[in-house]
Parts: sequence; C-alpha cells; structure tokens
Amino acid sequence: VQPVGEVAKEAEAYLKQCYVERGLPEVFLPRWQEVREEIAKTGKYEHTLDELSYGARLAWRNSSRCVGRYFWQSLQIRDMRHLETEEEMYGAIVDHIKIATNKGDLRALMTAFKPDGRRLWNAQLLRYAGYKQEDGMVLGDPANVEFTEQALELGWKPPANPTPFDYLPLVIQLPGKEPKWFDIPPEIILDVKIVHPDYEWFEELGLKWYALPAVCNMSLDLGGVQYTCTPFNGFYMGTEIGGRNFSDTYRYNKLPAIAKKMGLDCSSNDTLWKDRALIELNVAVLHSFKEQGVRLIDHHSMTDYFMEFMADEQKCQRPIHADWGWIVPPISGSLTPVYPLEFENRILKPNYFYMSDAWK
Amino acid sequence: VQPVGEVAKEAEAYLKQCYVERGLPEVFLPRWQEVREEIAKTGKYEHTLDELSYGARLAWRNSSRCVGRYFWQSLQIRDMRHLETEEEMYGAIVDHIKIATNKGDLRALMTAFKPDGRRLWNAQLLRYAGYKQEDGMVLGDPANVEFTEQALELGWKPPANPTPFDYLPLVIQLPGKEPKWFDIPPEIILDVKIVHPDYEWFEELGLKWYALPAVCNMSLDLGGVQYTCTPFNGFYMGTEIGGRNFSDTYRYNKLPAIAKKMGLDCSSNDTLWKDRALIELNVAVLHSFKEQGVRLIDHHSMTDYFMEFMADEQKCQRPIHADWGWIVPPISGSLTPVYPLEFENRILKPNYFYMSDAWK
Ligand code: HEM
Ligand code: HEM
Repeated sequence: VQPVGEVAKEAEAYLKQCYVERGLPEVFLPRWQEVREEIAKTGKYEHTLDELSYGARLAWRNSSRCVGRYFWQSLQIRDMRHLETEEEMYGAIVDHIKIATNKGDLRALMTAFKPDGRRLWNAQLLRYAGYKQEDGMVLGDPANVEFTEQALELGWKPPANPTPFDYLPLVIQLPGKEPKWFDIPPEIILDVKIVHPDYEWFEELGLKWYALPAVCNMSLDLGGVQYTCTPFNGFYMGTEIGGRNFSDTYRYNKLPAIAKKMGLDCSSNDTLWKDRALIELNVAVLHSFKEQGVRLIDHHSMTDYFMEFMADEQKCQRPIHADWGWIVPPISGSLTPVYPLEFENRILKPNYFYMSDAWK
Repeated sequence: VQPVGEVAKEAEAYLKQCYVERGLPEVFLPRWQEVREEIAKTGKYEHTLDELSYGARLAWRNSSRCVGRYFWQSLQIRDMRHLETEEEMYGAIVDHIKIATNKGDLRALMTAFKPDGRRLWNAQLLRYAGYKQEDGMVLGDPANVEFTEQALELGWKPPANPTPFDYLPLVIQLPGKEPKWFDIPPEIILDVKIVHPDYEWFEELGLKWYALPAVCNMSLDLGGVQYTCTPFNGFYMGTEIGGRNFSDTYRYNKLPAIAKKMGLDCSSNDTLWKDRALIELNVAVLHSFKEQGVRLIDHHSMTDYFMEFMADEQKCQRPIHADWGWIVPPISGSLTPVYPLEFENRILKPNYFYMSDAWK
C-alpha cells in the first residue's frame, strides 16, 4: 500500500493528463478538488469509468514493449469493479472471453475488477498445461509447468488422457482468502488448427493454438491506484506463436520435427534448416488463422503500423518510448522498418507492470 | 588531444591491466615508472609491441557489439608505427589484405599505424562504390555514396563502365596534409560469387561479395593513446551479407528480385515472401563461401561460440558487457541462444570507437 501523499501526487498528475489531453482542462480542477478531499478523508479514491477507460488506453500507449500500440485508442473497458465473489468474477471472465473473441473478429478488451489486491494466478486467461514427466520431459507447454503444479495442488484435475493442449483452469484469489479454481467452458474457446497452405503433412503435427491472447498477470498502475486484476487482450502477431511458442527450444520445440518432414538436411547449422522450418511454421500460423477467420497480424504489417503510431505520436508532439528488443520481431528482424531505429526506453505512468507470482 | 593528466591516468590503468591480467604483476611498477616519466617529459608515451598487441585484443574483448569475441585471443597485430608516407602505408595495407585473406583461410589481423592522427577515409578496406544516378537511384552500394563522391572529388576515376561492384580506392591522409588515393590491385582481392545450392538461376542475379571484412574507421583507444588508423578484420558472419548488405531496402535490396525468381506470391505481406527469399539468400551466401573455400560463419554457430565466450569470461570472473540488438543476428533472432539473455552494455576501455567522417 502506498503512502497517501504518493497517491495524491499520482492522482493529480494523472487527472491532469486525462482531462488536458482530451481537451477538457476546465474539468480538471474541480475533479482534482473532489479527489483530493476523498484521499484526505479515506486514503484512496475511485476513478470514474471515463478516467479508468482513458487510463487503461494511456497505459497501453505507454507500454514500451508493445508493438501493437497503433491501436491504443480502440481498447474497450468493461467495468466490473462492483463484483465481489470469485463466482461473479468467473462469470465476468467467461463473458470477457466471449466478447473479446467475437467469433474470430477479435477486439481489444479489458475487464477491470475491484482494485483491492485481488488476483488471477494465471499468466494469460487461456494457456496450456505443462506436465513435468518422470523423465524430466514436459508434456504440453513448458512455460506453464509451475502454474500447472499450483493448479494441481489446489485440486484441479487434468483430463484422464492428458494432451499437449489441455486448458488450465482460472485461479481467482480474493485478498486474504484461499484461491478458487474454475474450468473454462470449452465451447467458448476459439482454437485454430495449424495447417500449411502447401504441405499436407503439416496437419499431422497436431498443432493448434488459441485465438485470444489475454494477459492477466500485469497490474494497471493508474493515478496512484493498483488494478491488480485487469485481464486485457489484443490479437496475436503471428510470430508470437510461430516464432516463439512453437519454435523456442524451451517451449513446444517443433522445428526439428518440421524440418524432418520437409526433408531438410539437418546435419549442419549452415543449411539453415532451422530458419527454413521456422519460416514455413510461421506461414502455416498466418495461413491457418486467416483461413479459419480469426484475426491476427503478420510482423511486417504490424511494424508498418508501428511506424504510423510513431508518426501519430510525433504529430501530437509526444515522445516515443520503446524497448527495441521487444519491438523488433523475433524472426526476420532486419526486414522490418523498426530495425534501424533507436529508441529511448522510458517507462511512463500509467502503465502495466509485472507482479510477482501470486503463490510466492 | 587529451590533457597530460588524463593520458597518465589511462596509461596507468591499462598497463596495470595488461601486466596483472597476464600474470606479470611485477613488471607493472617499473614499466609504469618509466611511462610516467616519459609522459611528464613529452606529454605522451609509446606502447611496446606487446602492450599494443594485448591492448588490441582487449579492445576487441570489450567491443560490446561484437558477437565474434570468442576468438579475441587470436588477433594478430602488425606493427607499422614506423611508417611515414602514404605510399609506405599503402604498401602495408596491400600486405594486410593479402595476409589476412590468406587465400580464403582468413585470419583476424590488425595493422597499427603511427598514432599521430593519420586517417583512412574508408569505412572498410574493401567496399563497393555507390553512384547516385540522375533519377535518384543508386548504382552499387548506397551505403557508400558519400565516400564515393569524396573519392571522385579527389580525382579518382571510376571504371569506364561502372558496375554495382566497383572497388573504391584507399584514401590515406597524414595529419595536416591533403589526402591521397590509391587503387587496390584487383588481383589481391578475393571475391565470392554468390550461387545457390538448388536454384541455378541464382547466379544470374550477378551477386558477389568480398571475403575480407576489414573495418578502418574506428579508433583504438588504448591507455590514453588514440590509434586513429588501425584497420582490423575478422571474417564474415553470413547474415552481415545475406541479412543486411544484399537485403536491406537501403542497400542492394535484392529480395524482390529473388522472390520473383522463386515464384513466390508477393501480393501480400502474410505469404512471408520476403522472409522466404531472405533465407534462401542467406543459404546462398553460406553455400558460396564454403564451396569457394572462404572462411565465414553462420549465425547459429557464431552465437553458440558467443555462449562459450561468455562461459570463458565467467570462469575468469570478468563481467560480460554486450549490446543485445547487435549480438542477436538480424534474421531468426529467436532461434539463437543469445535471444533470451539480458546484457548490461557498459563500454570499457580499451575499446574501438567511431570517429567522425574524416572529410567533415
Ligand atoms: C491489438 C493487438 C496487439 C498486438 C498485435 C500486440 C502485440 C504485442 C507483442 C508482439 C508483444 C510482445 C509479446 C512477447 O514477445 O511476449 C506485446 C507486448 C505487450 N503488449 Fe501488446 N499487442 C496488442 C494489444 C495490446 C493491448 C490491448 C495491451 C494492453 C491494454 C497491450 C500491452 C502490452 C504489454 C504491457 C506488453 C509487454 C508484455 C510483457 O512485458 O511481457 N498490448 N504486444
Ligand atoms: C573473427 C571473426 C569476427 C566475427 C564473425 C565478428 C562478428 C561481428 C558482427 C556480426 C558484428 C556486427 C556487425 C554489423 O552488424 O554491422 C561485429 C561488430 C563489431 N566487431 Fe566483430 N567480428 C569478428 C572479428 C572482430 C575483430 C577482429 C574485431 C576487432 C579487433 C571486431 C570488433 C568489432 C567491433 C568494434 C564491432 C562493432 C562495430 C560497430 O559498432 O559498427 N570484430 N562483429
């Protein structure tokens, strides 16, 4: 918990930005007067829906690692601060998944829960279990082994026949309470089967991924208030799936299998068999989403948009802050217009910050 | 020119490192005594060949942008500090090119000239002219347009029929004198014709590149002495040629032509035609160098070596400094073991530093 003086300082700075930037400077002073009194009396204050919405967008605009910020003004906010119980929250998250997925025409959405320290233990709303086997190998997604173990300890039961793509439960924890877990109704999840436009055998790899990337382990730090439970989503950039999730050796590690099927000479690094397999995997991801009517974007188009975002910001005379290593995509970096740029990576508030794992 | 106090401070620090690190701490004090007196009397001092050699290697080890540092101890130094005239220097540079090229079995080599402010105007010993055409297009390498114009102003004559691969002259300038230019004897330059292991048509693109990447626009900053003319070379990592020189839109920009020949669908970003063409171009570069007996290294093997470099340094309890965006290769970044690492990018001396263009 922050000292009251801090809250007031951050509240003032944010409210000023919120109203001045939107051309409503005359609203700022009376509103700040009101908020200051509320803070003086109670040590905290509540954002109007308007303040929360604009703040969530600003926090996105300030996310120096996000290459998707061209769309920052499109973020929609669902105000669920009135919900109390885990069951109510679970219902709201189910709705979030449905509304954001929108049958494949994904929309950027955030659901804001009461900023009282409540948490989702999940890293993303949708993620696949990672089961550590006796031989040390992992069935599923190695990134989620720890969370999977936590879920098992809480009593979650994996399917009788575990697969590499079993959805993890939602784990919701209210302040001072034991966490509760909930299975996500499978029928609300949109999956994309990964096939390749030219290689028929690709399908036999049995790959699929979910349409909705929804982060829920970051805190929205807004005007002195910590929203520790605010799942938000955009849509995927193809390389996140094809250039990391399926290809990293410490994730699904699929390149050796793909290269073998492609008949590549894997005897030496310099045949670039990994690179060739990587590109075809990414082609497959883009192709499959497109064919199955699910919105996603390729890294060329996304970095083009990022250049437009930068131009927009310059027009508004705002400085651009960015984390180069996250803005440049993990594959074909030098093909994108952001590669030769240099950025200052300043972290302005409002912003989204990592939290420590809830179970630690 | 630095104040004498500075020179003495840097000299002391370097000499200490030079002798202590090599297990000769007892040499340091007497040597430092001697150097201190020399600096007090004359404002400067001279490195022994030993000090110069070790310093050049240390400067390499400290080059936070260089992924090739595993080989830092292999650098050989040619001491040409006794040479005075441009003609003598030209001769030494011709020798450098021959010795370093070594018929394709390239060796890391530096030639050190007198540290009196003399300069090579070239960015690398070998580079292709870039001729700005009347329509604004460039024939040759757009990176070298400015230097090409300088050379022309100095009286250099391009071939009667300019090509995209005309070698620029060496431009040597002694302190306080006009620069002189010299053509490099074509017979000492080793070129690699770029062909593809599977695509016969690749050859028709008419691409070639030189074997020897020798940087000469950086100053070796060593123990308070500025070596402004110290051409040095290693060998190529394939992506420098295939992932930048031939593929950047602001360099030779060859991907559209390659994609067309490959018959790729270039109507949309998400067919990844650029990425596919890029990989085949890089395959061609690696294949051609290998087939023609010219040493180079692919980005997978090089980053593996870099991991070993890091392990070696850790064993010696030395911190590792690196510039992530330069260590991660321009293509297939996430396939390399350096991708998930985080580095601190501290610039230690001795090191190599950019100089402003000599003609400005
Ligand atoms: C609209 C589509 C969007 C696209 C295509 C996009 C793209 C990306 C990508 C590719 C990354 C790097 C992810 C990684 O490598 O792990 C990223 C990171 C990030 N994005 Fe976006 N994004 C979108 C929407 C959003 C939204 C709606 C928000 C918040 C409201 C957001 C906030 C962030 C943050 C905070 C990070 C850094 C995450 C971290 O540090 O782990 N993005 N984004
Ligand atoms: C032995 C083989 C070597 C390899 C494979 C290698 C590899 C590389 C690569 C790929 C880069 C990035 C180049 C770019 O993107 O423009 C680089 C930069 C650099 N390397 Fe090396 N290198 C080697 C030898 C050397 C040597 C012998 C030195 C000096 C003695 C050196 C010093 C540097 C420096 C100073 C940079 C940064 C250049 C700049 O800032 O523009 N390297 N190296």
